[in-house]
Amino acid sequence: MNNPLETLTTSIKTLVENKKYATLRDILITMNAVDIAALMEDIPESSIPLLYRLLPKELAADTFVEMEPEMQELLIHGFSDNELKEVLDELYVDDAVDIIEEMPANVVKRILSAADAEKRQMINTILKYPDDSAGSIMTTEFVELRLHMTVEDAILRIRRSGIDKETINTCYVTSKERKLLGVVTIRDLIMGDPDDTMEELMEDNVIFAETVTDQEEVARMFSKYGFLTIPVVDTEERLVGIVTIDDVMDVMQEEVSEDIDKMNAMLPSEKPYLRRSTFELWKSRIPWLLFLMISATFTGMIIRKFEGALSKFVVLTAYIPMLMDTGGNSGSQSSVTIIRAISLREVEFKDLPVVIFKEMRVSLLCGITLAVCNFAKLMIFDRLTFTVAMVICLTLLFTIFCAKFIGCTLPIITARLGFDPAVMASPFITTIVDAVSLLVYFQFASNMLSL
Amino acid sequence: MNNPLETLTTSIKTLVENKKYATLRDILITMNAVDIAALMEDIPESSIPLLYRLLPKELAADTFVEMEPEMQELLIHGFSDNELKEVLDELYVDDAVDIIEEMPANVVKRILSAADAEKRQMINTILKYPDDSAGSIMTTEFVELRLHMTVEDAILRIRRSGIDKETINTCYVTSKERKLLGVVTIRDLIMGDPDDTMEELMEDNVIFAETVTDQEEVARMFSKYGFLTIPVVDTEERLVGIVTIDDVMDVMQEEVSEDIDKMNAMLPSEKPYLRRSTFELWKSRIPWLLFLMISATFTGMIIRKFEGALSKFVVLTAYIPMLMDTGGNSGSQSSVTIIRAISLREVEFKDLPVVIFKEMRVSLLCGITLAVCNFAKLMIFDRLTFTVAMVICLTLLFTIFCAKFIGCTLPIITARLGFDPAVMASPFITTIVDAVSLLVYFQFASNMLSL
Repeated sequence: MNNPLETLTTSIKTLVENKKYATLRDILITMNAVDIAALMEDIPESSIPLLYRLLPKELAADTFVEMEPEMQELLIHGFSDNELKEVLDELYVDDAVDIIEEMPANVVKRILSAADAEKRQMINTILKYPDDSAGSIMTTEFVELRLHMTVEDAILRIRRSGIDKETINTCYVTSKERKLLGVVTIRDLIMGDPDDTMEELMEDNVIFAETVTDQEEVARMFSKYGFLTIPVVDTEERLVGIVTIDDVMDVMQEEVSEDIDKMNAMLPSEKPYLRRSTFELWKSRIPWLLFLMISATFTGMIIRKFEGALSKFVVLTAYIPMLMDTGGNSGSQSSVTIIRAISLREVEFKDLPVVIFKEMRVSLLCGITLAVCNFAKLMIFDRLTFTVAMVICLTLLFTIFCAKFIGCTLPIITARLGFDPAVMASPFITTIVDAVSLLVYFQFASNMLSL
Repeated sequence: MNNPLETLTTSIKTLVENKKYATLRDILITMNAVDIAALMEDIPESSIPLLYRLLPKELAADTFVEMEPEMQELLIHGFSDNELKEVLDELYVDDAVDIIEEMPANVVKRILSAADAEKRQMINTILKYPDDSAGSIMTTEFVELRLHMTVEDAILRIRRSGIDKETINTCYVTSKERKLLGVVTIRDLIMGDPDDTMEELMEDNVIFAETVTDQEEVARMFSKYGFLTIPVVDTEERLVGIVTIDDVMDVMQEEVSEDIDKMNAMLPSEKPYLRRSTFELWKSRIPWLLFLMISATFTGMIIRKFEGALSKFVVLTAYIPMLMDTGGNSGSQSSVTIIRAISLREVEFKDLPVVIFKEMRVSLLCGITLAVCNFAKLMIFDRLTFTVAMVICLTLLFTIFCAKFIGCTLPIITARLGFDPAVMASPFITTIVDAVSLLVYFQFASNMLSL
């Protein structure tokens, strides 16, 4: 994949072994912090602090942010109080909070005591917001301007205070009570006349989040409106922070991974696969497996009820897997499509009739295609009688119809009831469709073959 | 979901009916273009051109960009040549290209002839790059600076030319031959001294894409490095365009939808669900359904081979669905987790042994848990004999082991061979696991129950 990076890793390892520190430093300073952090994963643990200390202050802090929590902890343990303070001074508040959230209590204590009073207070502000809220992913470092300021004043303020701010691309105009009044972009400032005031330049229809807004909702606002930052206000409409798009991209990926986990009968986890222990994987997988295994009891009960009939016509058994699999696949096609459309806000509850009508037509088309192909196969290759082939193909048609109906309605209704539609995906729907299709199979068989 | 917006839509509809255009205009100008475009979806088609003409020029163009292609086409048909030219002048090149790509040939011709020569040339440049490449999603409107320029020169250049550029937050330093030399952010310019030159200020380790780089790869660069823009160079390393993060967010969502489609036995589509016709849905779903139905023939063949044995022990049939479903679910848990990890670049081919070892331990844990629970159920509730219960539970254990092994190895090997691992998800794996588990089931049964 990253071939040039892999080659680089190999040569850096050799340089570390041969203690060529000057050369190492020359290479490292040309690299991006993300790549340096990835590289550190691949070199012996004992060399990491050494390599880290070769980096210039700012690059070191940037690299620190990109590392895995385990490595951050390792480095912090090796830091002197002074070194820790230096790193903290370079970090943005939201990055510092992200790091703190992954650290054990004793490390958190050390970090907080190394931070200066102002930063400590900002960190604590963000820490107090609930997980997954806009408050928890925002940063409190933004540029605040006032109505009467001119472009000249504003640029002066940015020059004086901007160095510590996460972004200066978007600045916010607030009242004395810190109420959010408008937004001014750096573009407005550069393009404006030095005497223009913020009141003249600002856009006053500001779209904002509240501290308690769910982070998934915030991510949706970014992708809907195409913003780079969104301001966050508290219950009294005072501006307390901003969320920047880089933090939201992580949230978006996490949410997608969570949805995919849920759609496939797993409890979601935020950790990357390779960092999850066997036990953690087991814990996320066993509940649904157990629940679905027990649900399959119904299917078994149906078969046992028709055991007598089946023993007279064992050939019917051979087509149970095909019917079940096709039903499951048809159902999951519909449910997964609808779940995705719900999460992209393309489908809402009011669309239910349209969706059902559409899926019914699709299921008819799919059902007829499959039934016809299957009928030909049953007659020509399997040499079944016409009636037996009809029983199987009619069941197939009905199963697909039923699977697509359940597959499209359940997620929409689940979402309407306020639950997460993602769990209404293939595994759950397969279990229901299995039972229904078997019932229909044996009913058709009983009537048409007079079992 | 968007209750305030829905209320607004209702009142705007009433205003349209009552022809209160002044009031309508006052409301519309306070709204975001995205919301206006969404609103237009809900009002009668005949009122749309009227409502659109109420918007100030810039807001009108922004709204136009956000509309569905059908509505854009409708409006273009109603535009005079002058109106069309006005809209085009306000559009960024990449947005114009996005619109053109969705229009029928006669509309494209009209658009291109309405654009001025410079814009037409830029549009044609982008149109010539292959779909899904960086070239096709880039814009050619960016700010170019030179090495010797001072901050003062640079800001002057931005003020003169920046109004037409999609972003001024990141500017690029190029040589006379337009080779990319470095990147300067607007922050560097604001914080720098008026006399600092670009050579002093710029970052010269620039991460860039090539025009032919796959758009998915570009999206990955954005989320990996947290950039807001990425420069695009041609084969001679000349800077030809930039990709901005807002365009990439759409790409990311499309790619996730595509993966989800593939993982659930569908051919991917880029259209939103409600805009796809019955026939289009059928076309995307039937190939895999057909293929998987035919594959299930093997499972049927296995059952038919053991028909004689089964007829002596029909109770075994009752547990086929449970075994198949549990196998399918276990397999899809592993495959989907691994497919997601591959697409996030968390797992590579070299991790195969680690992954197999981890999955084997997880499958053992899951298998034992399920087998023990199931054994208890079979003995207590179903009152089976010890041997029959053993046959079922040993098969269950083996099926889970096998499902997780296939589920974790197939995607990694598929990716290594250069194919898309997403198709190696549940439906495909279920079919394989079905066949294997039935074979084992009957083998165990034949030996232990001496059928």
